[in-house]
Amino acid sequence: MDYTKVWLNYRPVKSASAQVFSLCTQEKGPIIDNIFAEFDTALPAMYGIVPVHGYKDGTIPIELSLDTVLHAEAYRIEKNEKKISITAGAHVGLLYGTFALLRFMQTGKASADFTVEKSPSNPLRMANHWDNMDGSIERGYSGKSFFFADDKVIVNERTRDYARMMASVGINASVINNVNVRFSAPFLLTERYRKPLIEMAKIFAGYGIKLFLSVNFASPVRVGGLDTADPLDKNVQVWWRDTCKDIFEDIPNFGGFLVKADSEGEFGPFAYGRTHAEGANMLADAVRPYGGIIVWRCFVYNCQQDWRDNITDRACQSYLNFIELDGKFADNVILQIKNGPVDFQVREPVHPLFGGLKHTNMMIEFQIAQEYTGQQRHVCYLLPEFREILDFKTYNGEEFDTVKDLVSGKNYGYKNCGMAAVMNTGNDKNWTGHDLAAANLYGFGRLAYEDTLTPEEIAQEWIALTFGNESQVMENVQKILMMSWPAYEKYNAPLGIGWMVNPNVHFGPNVDGYEYDRWGTYHRISHSAIGRDRSSRGTGYSQQYPEPLASMYDQIETCPEELLLFFHRVRFDHIMSTGETLLQYIYNTHFEGVEDVEKMLTMWETLKDKIEPESYARVLERMQFQLEHSKEWRDRINTYLYRMTEIPDAKGRKIYD
Amino acid sequence: MDYTKVWLNYRPVKSASAQVFSLCTQEKGPIIDNIFAEFDTALPAMYGIVPVHGYKDGTIPIELSLDTVLHAEAYRIEKNEKKISITAGAHVGLLYGTFALLRFMQTGKASADFTVEKSPSNPLRMANHWDNMDGSIERGYSGKSFFFADDKVIVNERTRDYARMMASVGINASVINNVNVRFSAPFLLTERYRKPLIEMAKIFAGYGIKLFLSVNFASPVRVGGLDTADPLDKNVQVWWRDTCKDIFEDIPNFGGFLVKADSEGEFGPFAYGRTHAEGANMLADAVRPYGGIIVWRCFVYNCQQDWRDNITDRACQSYLNFIELDGKFADNVILQIKNGPVDFQVREPVHPLFGGLKHTNMMIEFQIAQEYTGQQRHVCYLLPEFREILDFKTYNGEEFDTVKDLVSGKNYGYKNCGMAAVMNTGNDKNWTGHDLAAANLYGFGRLAYEDTLTPEEIAQEWIALTFGNESQVMENVQKILMMSWPAYEKYNAPLGIGWMVNPNVHFGPNVDGYEYDRWGTYHRISHSAIGRDRSSRGTGYSQQYPEPLASMYDQIETCPEELLLFFHRVRFDHIMSTGETLLQYIYNTHFEGVEDVEKMLTMWETLKDKIEPESYARVLERMQFQLEHSKEWRDRINTYLYRMTEIPDAKGRKIYD
Repeated sequence: MDYTKVWLNYRPVKSASAQVFSLCTQEKGPIIDNIFAEFDTALPAMYGIVPVHGYKDGTIPIELSLDTVLHAEAYRIEKNEKKISITAGAHVGLLYGTFALLRFMQTGKASADFTVEKSPSNPLRMANHWDNMDGSIERGYSGKSFFFADDKVIVNERTRDYARMMASVGINASVINNVNVRFSAPFLLTERYRKPLIEMAKIFAGYGIKLFLSVNFASPVRVGGLDTADPLDKNVQVWWRDTCKDIFEDIPNFGGFLVKADSEGEFGPFAYGRTHAEGANMLADAVRPYGGIIVWRCFVYNCQQDWRDNITDRACQSYLNFIELDGKFADNVILQIKNGPVDFQVREPVHPLFGGLKHTNMMIEFQIAQEYTGQQRHVCYLLPEFREILDFKTYNGEEFDTVKDLVSGKNYGYKNCGMAAVMNTGNDKNWTGHDLAAANLYGFGRLAYEDTLTPEEIAQEWIALTFGNESQVMENVQKILMMSWPAYEKYNAPLGIGWMVNPNVHFGPNVDGYEYDRWGTYHRISHSAIGRDRSSRGTGYSQQYPEPLASMYDQIETCPEELLLFFHRVRFDHIMSTGETLLQYIYNTHFEGVEDVEKMLTMWETLKDKIEPESYARVLERMQFQLEHSKEWRDRINTYLYRMTEIPDAKGRKIYD
Repeated sequence: MDYTKVWLNYRPVKSASAQVFSLCTQEKGPIIDNIFAEFDTALPAMYGIVPVHGYKDGTIPIELSLDTVLHAEAYRIEKNEKKISITAGAHVGLLYGTFALLRFMQTGKASADFTVEKSPSNPLRMANHWDNMDGSIERGYSGKSFFFADDKVIVNERTRDYARMMASVGINASVINNVNVRFSAPFLLTERYRKPLIEMAKIFAGYGIKLFLSVNFASPVRVGGLDTADPLDKNVQVWWRDTCKDIFEDIPNFGGFLVKADSEGEFGPFAYGRTHAEGANMLADAVRPYGGIIVWRCFVYNCQQDWRDNITDRACQSYLNFIELDGKFADNVILQIKNGPVDFQVREPVHPLFGGLKHTNMMIEFQIAQEYTGQQRHVCYLLPEFREILDFKTYNGEEFDTVKDLVSGKNYGYKNCGMAAVMNTGNDKNWTGHDLAAANLYGFGRLAYEDTLTPEEIAQEWIALTFGNESQVMENVQKILMMSWPAYEKYNAPLGIGWMVNPNVHFGPNVDGYEYDRWGTYHRISHSAIGRDRSSRGTGYSQQYPEPLASMYDQIETCPEELLLFFHRVRFDHIMSTGETLLQYIYNTHFEGVEDVEKMLTMWETLKDKIEPESYARVLERMQFQLEHSKEWRDRINTYLYRMTEIPDAKGRKIYD
């Protein structure tokens, strides 16, 4: 198999004198083996000399030891001229400390003495793979699945490299199959797939990763042959308990289930008149004896809306479906809430459940699969967005009230909660299709472990590890990454309105693509105005937030401008803070977005001789595509609005008629 | 196999006294066998008594004899109280005479004495099936193919019923495979499929039908293993000659090839810098020794247009591609020209090649597969459209200058020319999905044989044959059929502008569905106006017609109103002949279209006890769908225009915002 090692492709540390390290520990086990293997790979690559195993005079010992005062996944690194020690609460902490130390070494930050201690911000740091058992990946833009092919589970060399890659950024849980659990996927629960799953989980265990499965709520019928899946039915409960007993006993590091129920056609407890809480709690009972967890998605809305219905508002629905159930979920159930109320658009407000739920375990769901943000053919570094969202103050009345406080469980003793991301990986050579998309995977993991990191810090680390820390490379790639989300937003659907994409594929501009469809996503552009009124005078969505947010969002004057068209219907002659009309603002940003991409492309081209040629060429080809595609975005949106308003660009630039 | 006999489902003739007929002829052969079989089926069903074979006292003889003065496909029926005689130029004419006689009997028109003589208007009356060898049908709305499945040719009982059905309306040529000749279809030419094709052709022969194949112009490479398909290459020519020799020798009633070349990605002579004439003539040479014919499609245009390009006009392109080649095609080549310049929209002008070509064999291509006209889920009886088109005066300078004169070859001695239709059949029980869609198949055949028939006459025949001639049935179904095309046009894209459909599927309204796409079909609606200027001041398309048409189309004032938006960009405040603004006219017609469908549905419902229940229910379900779907058409188009203009309906009806 031919694939890259992404950011784990260790290279010589410049200006480092050759050093001999010795690896010293009394610990034993599969994680320790993997730690040794990592040092054995990394140190010769960076310093030219193979490390010694065990104490030896004349070497710099790297001592690994446990300190149970520390959290299992926490680590402390102390380095001076004579030795380096890594201390952790458990083996997995030593593994994280190892990757941290190697990162410091590789990025040139390990030359002086230092002490660093880190403890994970979030208990669960979870990868959600939307891989299907036929090998396809829903919203996958990096090739086929490396977990499944032809209805079989794949376990091979790449499984280990996957686990290693995930562990290197602190991810500790992986849901390997799609939340839409169809065809043969419901049978992942059964003996049919047990053997390869045991093998896979064993590899995961060596990297501190728990294996989760997405399950179909109808499994008792589909798999178990029962005539009901009613969560209050005794036989159903017994079936789930028996099934869980088997799987947890076979797989010691099995974590539990991710469930998409009563959502977009997936089966759920509604079929029996039961609530989400009744459904989730029944499963929670079944996994509780084994410390298992049920992750229950909140992506629930009416996907059969009539476009003529101007009252129903999809943005309101996820909140309405769950807010009444606050406090009713078992303590080993976690609600997984998308970052925004709709669906991973380039700009959305923070999901109001984060301010709303007070007695429920929460996990935030990000999406690094760039479904709506360029599908890994556009550069779109999402960490700036994640940073904004995590720092969002929910005003929920708790002492710690930002989103990161809620999902990390800061108010509740860090129990069942955390961060999840829909993954962007596939069996492409570079794992993520676009080489620069790997920064989102790297960044998500790092942020989940250490939720105060800035996007700039993360980018610096990732660039240095991936491309080396030559100054022009560091500077230009950093600029490209940091420009990319704002640029994408500029040439995309404006100001939070979202959805101007081609149906189904969600790629490329199509202003009316979803306008007359059943998905509840309408811009309602007319000659003089754009947007839906989600204020208290409209659908009332703004009132799902606590004060002062509810009032702030409720008025055009106080609504953050980047969300203006999410919350309000606004006339095209509305004057923006820049002094331009709304229409001219949209024209301008669409011209600017393309100019930004031109700059990004130029910056990449200057790195021609400084980036490994194959990687350089892959990125170049995609950025050239992105430039043409950003023009298509610009032209289609500007032309649509020009035709609608017949008001030309104030600066006289070409808008096609 | 369970399928209906459509209009050949003979039923008792009311008020007829039981009559014994005797079938008398000296002719022998497979067609004669089929004639006898037809009488043996029909006469007992209509008159209650099995006919006698051969003369017998006390019977009414039906005498079949040849008169070589008559055209092979012509027939004369003479009926008096004592006997009925059918005379024809050849066996196939006797077959047509037989079907005509049975039609007269079934529709109650054979009670009095009569003499009728008919000769076919068009030499070729051709079915174009777009069936693929995997069993799918491109633009098929009646189930799967009955010619192919799983890359095999199907020959069974239905093959015979197909041939019988086609012959009963005078169709004498059938192209059984899709013009897009892909996957295993190029191999239909080869030994691989010869055996079942021989069997099929033999059945066809018994019904006077020639078998044609669509061929891939790249066959010498794809099938023959040559390294070129250049029509001027000696080896290519030899390959085609050898291939044709084999197939024509094996299949006596093989007719030739239908070719889609250099069109929508299909391979053609352009690849070698050759013209359509060079390509077609090379094939014509290969089939000439066997009396074979090459039908070459004129559906050639740039399907990679940039929507921003406002100069290129798809409507112009078919004409431009072929007009310079006038006179350069061999005499056994026929250019097959779609009825309009674009693609089977509900309203288009007549294709300008009909007035343009003067020295080229022509065939008109209609489409009874209702690709853009409701896909056999809407009733849309197309014979009124065909009638208009055939009667269109081209002003081409010939004595007989209507379209029907040109395609029938009236000026040139009726040689290689005629009418083709893309078929609407599949393996659905009722053959055409919608029971009423069979009227288009029936009507196309009848019109091709007898090109002066009116849509009303054809409808009367078809209704009486299909549902019986009870007066309310005759009246209501006739009204439904005759209302249906105008109704569809009313709620569809207005006034010839076309294309407001969902991409690819071509079903359901989507105003911008093709607006920013590469297919060259743009409405360019803005706040104040709609349409593209195809006049001499615009793309110049109007000037492809001879005078006085060119001048007539060139001015808004003289352009036929139903084509206003095909030819012109018009302001929404333009005053129509009705006195309304253009905008209000569009609103009105869209409300009216739905009202028309309501009336059609009511008329059908009144026939509940007069139509065979299964057929009644099938039609009812589709008409109920049509009603809802016509509302969707009305609302999406009206809403789009209301948003664009912000001018409300003058009559205060609900237009969604």
